[in-house]
Amino acid sequence: MAASKFSWLSFSLGLLLLCGVSEETQTGRCRIDSLEALEPSRRVESEAGVTEYYDENSDQLQCAGVSVMRERIEPNGLLLPSYSNSPRLVYILQGRGITGVVIPGCPESYQQSGGRRFGGREGDEEEERDQSFQDEHQKIQHFRQGDVLVLPAGVAHWCYNDGKSPVTAVTVFDTSNSANQLDATHRQFLLAGRKQQGQRGSSRTSRRGEESSGDNVFSGFDVELLAEAIGVSRETARKLQSQDDNRGHIVRVERGLEVLRPRPSRREEEEEEGGKMAAVNGLDEAICSMKMRENIGEPSKADLYIPGGGRLTVLNNQKLPILSLVHLSANRGVLQRNAILAPHWNINAHAVVFVTSGRGRLQIVSNQGKNAFDGELRQGQLIVVPQNFAVLAQARSDGFSWISFQTNENAMNSAVVGKTSALRGIPVDVLVNSYRISREEAKNLKFNRGQEMAIFSPRSSKERAF
Amino acid sequence: MAASKFSWLSFSLGLLLLCGVSEETQTGRCRIDSLEALEPSRRVESEAGVTEYYDENSDQLQCAGVSVMRERIEPNGLLLPSYSNSPRLVYILQGRGITGVVIPGCPESYQQSGGRRFGGREGDEEEERDQSFQDEHQKIQHFRQGDVLVLPAGVAHWCYNDGKSPVTAVTVFDTSNSANQLDATHRQFLLAGRKQQGQRGSSRTSRRGEESSGDNVFSGFDVELLAEAIGVSRETARKLQSQDDNRGHIVRVERGLEVLRPRPSRREEEEEEGGKMAAVNGLDEAICSMKMRENIGEPSKADLYIPGGGRLTVLNNQKLPILSLVHLSANRGVLQRNAILAPHWNINAHAVVFVTSGRGRLQIVSNQGKNAFDGELRQGQLIVVPQNFAVLAQARSDGFSWISFQTNENAMNSAVVGKTSALRGIPVDVLVNSYRISREEAKNLKFNRGQEMAIFSPRSSKERAF
Amino acid sequence: MAASKFSWLSFSLGLLLLCGVSEETQTGRCRIDSLEALEPSRRVESEAGVTEYYDENSDQLQCAGVSVMRERIEPNGLLLPSYSNSPRLVYILQGRGITGVVIPGCPESYQQSGGRRFGGREGDEEEERDQSFQDEHQKIQHFRQGDVLVLPAGVAHWCYNDGKSPVTAVTVFDTSNSANQLDATHRQFLLAGRKQQGQRGSSRTSRRGEESSGDNVFSGFDVELLAEAIGVSRETARKLQSQDDNRGHIVRVERGLEVLRPRPSRREEEEEEGGKMAAVNGLDEAICSMKMRENIGEPSKADLYIPGGGRLTVLNNQKLPILSLVHLSANRGVLQRNAILAPHWNINAHAVVFVTSGRGRLQIVSNQGKNAFDGELRQGQLIVVPQNFAVLAQARSDGFSWISFQTNENAMNSAVVGKTSALRGIPVDVLVNSYRISREEAKNLKFNRGQEMAIFSPRSSKERAF
Repeated sequence: MAASKFSWLSFSLGLLLLCGVSEETQTGRCRIDSLEALEPSRRVESEAGVTEYYDENSDQLQCAGVSVMRERIEPNGLLLPSYSNSPRLVYILQGRGITGVVIPGCPESYQQSGGRRFGGREGDEEEERDQSFQDEHQKIQHFRQGDVLVLPAGVAHWCYNDGKSPVTAVTVFDTSNSANQLDATHRQFLLAGRKQQGQRGSSRTSRRGEESSGDNVFSGFDVELLAEAIGVSRETARKLQSQDDNRGHIVRVERGLEVLRPRPSRREEEEEEGGKMAAVNGLDEAICSMKMRENIGEPSKADLYIPGGGRLTVLNNQKLPILSLVHLSANRGVLQRNAILAPHWNINAHAVVFVTSGRGRLQIVSNQGKNAFDGELRQGQLIVVPQNFAVLAQARSDGFSWISFQTNENAMNSAVVGKTSALRGIPVDVLVNSYRISREEAKNLKFNRGQEMAIFSPRSSKERAF
Repeated sequence: MAASKFSWLSFSLGLLLLCGVSEETQTGRCRIDSLEALEPSRRVESEAGVTEYYDENSDQLQCAGVSVMRERIEPNGLLLPSYSNSPRLVYILQGRGITGVVIPGCPESYQQSGGRRFGGREGDEEEERDQSFQDEHQKIQHFRQGDVLVLPAGVAHWCYNDGKSPVTAVTVFDTSNSANQLDATHRQFLLAGRKQQGQRGSSRTSRRGEESSGDNVFSGFDVELLAEAIGVSRETARKLQSQDDNRGHIVRVERGLEVLRPRPSRREEEEEEGGKMAAVNGLDEAICSMKMRENIGEPSKADLYIPGGGRLTVLNNQKLPILSLVHLSANRGVLQRNAILAPHWNINAHAVVFVTSGRGRLQIVSNQGKNAFDGELRQGQLIVVPQNFAVLAQARSDGFSWISFQTNENAMNSAVVGKTSALRGIPVDVLVNSYRISREEAKNLKFNRGQEMAIFSPRSSKERAF
Repeated sequence: MAASKFSWLSFSLGLLLLCGVSEETQTGRCRIDSLEALEPSRRVESEAGVTEYYDENSDQLQCAGVSVMRERIEPNGLLLPSYSNSPRLVYILQGRGITGVVIPGCPESYQQSGGRRFGGREGDEEEERDQSFQDEHQKIQHFRQGDVLVLPAGVAHWCYNDGKSPVTAVTVFDTSNSANQLDATHRQFLLAGRKQQGQRGSSRTSRRGEESSGDNVFSGFDVELLAEAIGVSRETARKLQSQDDNRGHIVRVERGLEVLRPRPSRREEEEEEGGKMAAVNGLDEAICSMKMRENIGEPSKADLYIPGGGRLTVLNNQKLPILSLVHLSANRGVLQRNAILAPHWNINAHAVVFVTSGRGRLQIVSNQGKNAFDGELRQGQLIVVPQNFAVLAQARSDGFSWISFQTNENAMNSAVVGKTSALRGIPVDVLVNSYRISREEAKNLKFNRGQEMAIFSPRSSKERAF
């Protein structure tokens, strides 16, 4: 067989570019002739927060193979340690906090020697503290508004609000991910606390096994055996099972959580530095020090900025390599008053679009040329834009911002018009004959949106509100 | 159908991928105890061509997770721009033409400066042409009989017959490919024109959502919003929607299509040169200049040639790297009168076999040792040879030629007898005891087909008709 | 079952693959609220051995997407050549033998020149042998108790017991592997002999298409055509079809099998040498000389050894690269009297646990915190520990040994307590607030199992029985 004329280098770069390596599995039928704006259908209250679930059984979430929730953690609220059968992306809508992800085999690199002080929160009382007590644990990360957090499947994590205002976040679990070998249902495994019974908005019967109340994994073990295995008293083992704990899975830390950690820094570069210091030498550095967080909320991070139009910030595996592990990516969009998100389709991914502020009109078109959605989307609502479906959006007068989660580590789309678009790539004479238009019309079609791409400012007004 | 290994290099590279890279997802049950020769079940006529679909709901196509169609484009016929949810391979049965694949981000590398002339078809009238008009678009490729074209999922393409005779082609869509995150149905998204209602041969009810008539994706948008988004008049926007266009998706270009392109060359090396010149520097070179076409029809391309027997030409990811992106490969087989395609099984792929000429007798055997197919296959028919099923073919007196599409980028098979076969790799004494035969018989079994592989010429006659 | 990471190297290499490479496809719903110890449900007797199948339709095997069988081959028993639609791992419980795997394209590297003698078994009579007869075939491998054999999908293999005692083995077929594009049913394609009708323990109706009796693949071909294709007499072709062969698929070789092979050596290093000698030069060496076998039964191979507790031996793609092709791994565990396998969960794989000796108490906990299994498992029984489910085991007084097959080439788990565990990685104050325990209790929880990992010796007795 002839040797290829290609170099492996360029070839593999190509692979990264085009379809990535997404290994999504399919979950049956996509009944998506008609889409709707989704709002949370179930609400679970905890001592120090609230979790709201979007209906996992809705046709669009089933087609996309994802499960979505929105969480609110009050100040001093601690999200108890748990793990999930699916990888997830979390977008921080508001607030700040710290989180720990425990990867087996990574070092307990945050170590306190006897003489060193805790880096606890300012204002905490310290008189009762045992100064000689030493702790060590895995790396802790700060997060803040606009961050995307990446959590691999099956890995324990916890989260704490160390700010003055609530943390709110939206989370997408990719239940159809190849990392999940169980069925395509979101399953959360608690390591502490108990899940409370949720209150449902609707009385639908569950098609996919939605989780209601449940205990933590220690509850399923025999107390005696558990105590012996862990090497603690029966009493402590019983506490691990949390049977009489009604705080839910977000609990209040009365005097604030004390953990060993670098001070949060304003400048992200320094935070990065902190992250790197925690890494140990050798190959494991690759994963143990792998960055699991990136901010895409700040305007300065924008990949595309159109004065009077808006901005787009893309987060894919080239910016954040851990996304290659979870086969997901995200982007953040902001449209100003009346600006237009150019008609396009997602080539290699579904998009789960959550509105972070404002309102926009969205139109989504199926392969039959039928309107699968034509309506308004407002803050807190979400919709799935299925792979290959054409979509177009226009901000209302109060602007329109969203976070979009995509089921491919390098989600790509194809614009219909504008720079690097489908129509731009097609010869004028093909357009003339395709649409039975004049050469002049075809030329307008190709070039009227000249150097613009993705976001078009409204024709009439060109206000700059950024 | 058959693809014995011919060089150590390609072989070993291939094996590295043996079980590893194909990311086919499974589509439920394979009810394939009984296979049948398929003919098109639905026919859609357009102004300048015909599309015929094989029944996507047939058990064998469902098991293989593919959808198949045959297309005929008349001279001056233009297949309107569209994209599909699945990657596809197209084999050109007859004719020649040009095609454009629009990959977002690749440069509009075919540019016309004002002083340069179009490279239009000879014989076109040019008096009305605006000589100062400049166009630019993405690379265009020539194709001709015997070519395999590779089209990734979700990427717009169009096609034009610039020859004197019809273009006919057979296309396999790999709907169960990992690149398709929608359900395993072929979905075509038109960028222009409208799909016509098809005429069915059978009155079966559809199990998978077969597409009937449909509009293009512009039709689903509001005209007003579309016009504003694209920056054209409402009238042009309405034309994009093609609501009153009854030409179908293959239309006639009255005076021939004018596009910028290098002259087709007889010598493929020169064409290649052209392709490379179009590439831009940097990372995108890898994908934007990736070859998407390879001829396997010409006898001179054969990887295996048996005088008096026939020939085999294999096209896998080692010859055409883009096949690694779509997880498909193909081979072309020609058997002369009474020649035999050696009994073998496909190790890592299904094979969709389409008969390009002649007739052959095929036998396909299941894991129960049952005959799943024993019959004749003739031009225009197709059959699926399921993964691992044993298959054997013999040409009738008029010879037997086929194109086989395989659901793995490096499809491999294991011959039963002959060089590099299963029986050849097994010790004689194992065969003696397995079949209760003498050492002499076992020796014959292993060595009678000596240095022959894949294709065996008939014992009696050794005519050379190539 | 448990496979904590022991070296940084293996760990980090592993994590790169954490979510990335396993391409398991999902097989619908995992109804695994309640698990049970499985015993074989169907038994097929052959002339020189017995095959027992575990019920492929049980919820747990369906969830894990695997099929399991146990085989017994008597001395001088030959397992006839066949191939399967799924890759498999085989663990040799007892005995020794030789096996041939025929990979198309690999050389017939075991060649006998005229003057060389067969390396037959000692004690064979040789008077009738044709000394001038030459054979050549692909590499043959020795195996013995404690070996894991790796067989890729679709590749022919045979096996022979050349020892004095029976060979017993347990085999897991990964029917949901991406290498299998047919449905998730185990399909065995015989190249010789016939499958006998099995005797069932239960009278369940089959949900997945369990194979009963069946013929070999030659049987499905026309004798005439087969004879011509292979180049043998009709009589020989008929023998290939084995229609009147009632020996089953394990047959007796009366005077012992004669094959060309290096003498088995006691020292594995030498065996390796033998394997390497068989390789040819060039790139193909990678696959044709790839090691397909590794011993994990010997105590000296242990990755973790706890005096008084037990040992664990992990076999993943870092130790045996071919596992990357089949997306499977294995581990071998031995617990001494009353020792405890630390509570943990499998991060990225299901585990199919087969008990090789002794008895143990197992507890398995679901995401609801419910006990999915609490019972005793004894020799010959198996159970699936689903991905992410928490599991804990304690040996009975006679100890507990198992082999665990895992559906990921680098299966990883997360221990709950001990070194490199989830609780160790979490700050003390998070534990204090999670479980409402004192700092002292939290400290005990984190550090009581100090440097211990994976296996905990019983607190009371510390006997050393290894």
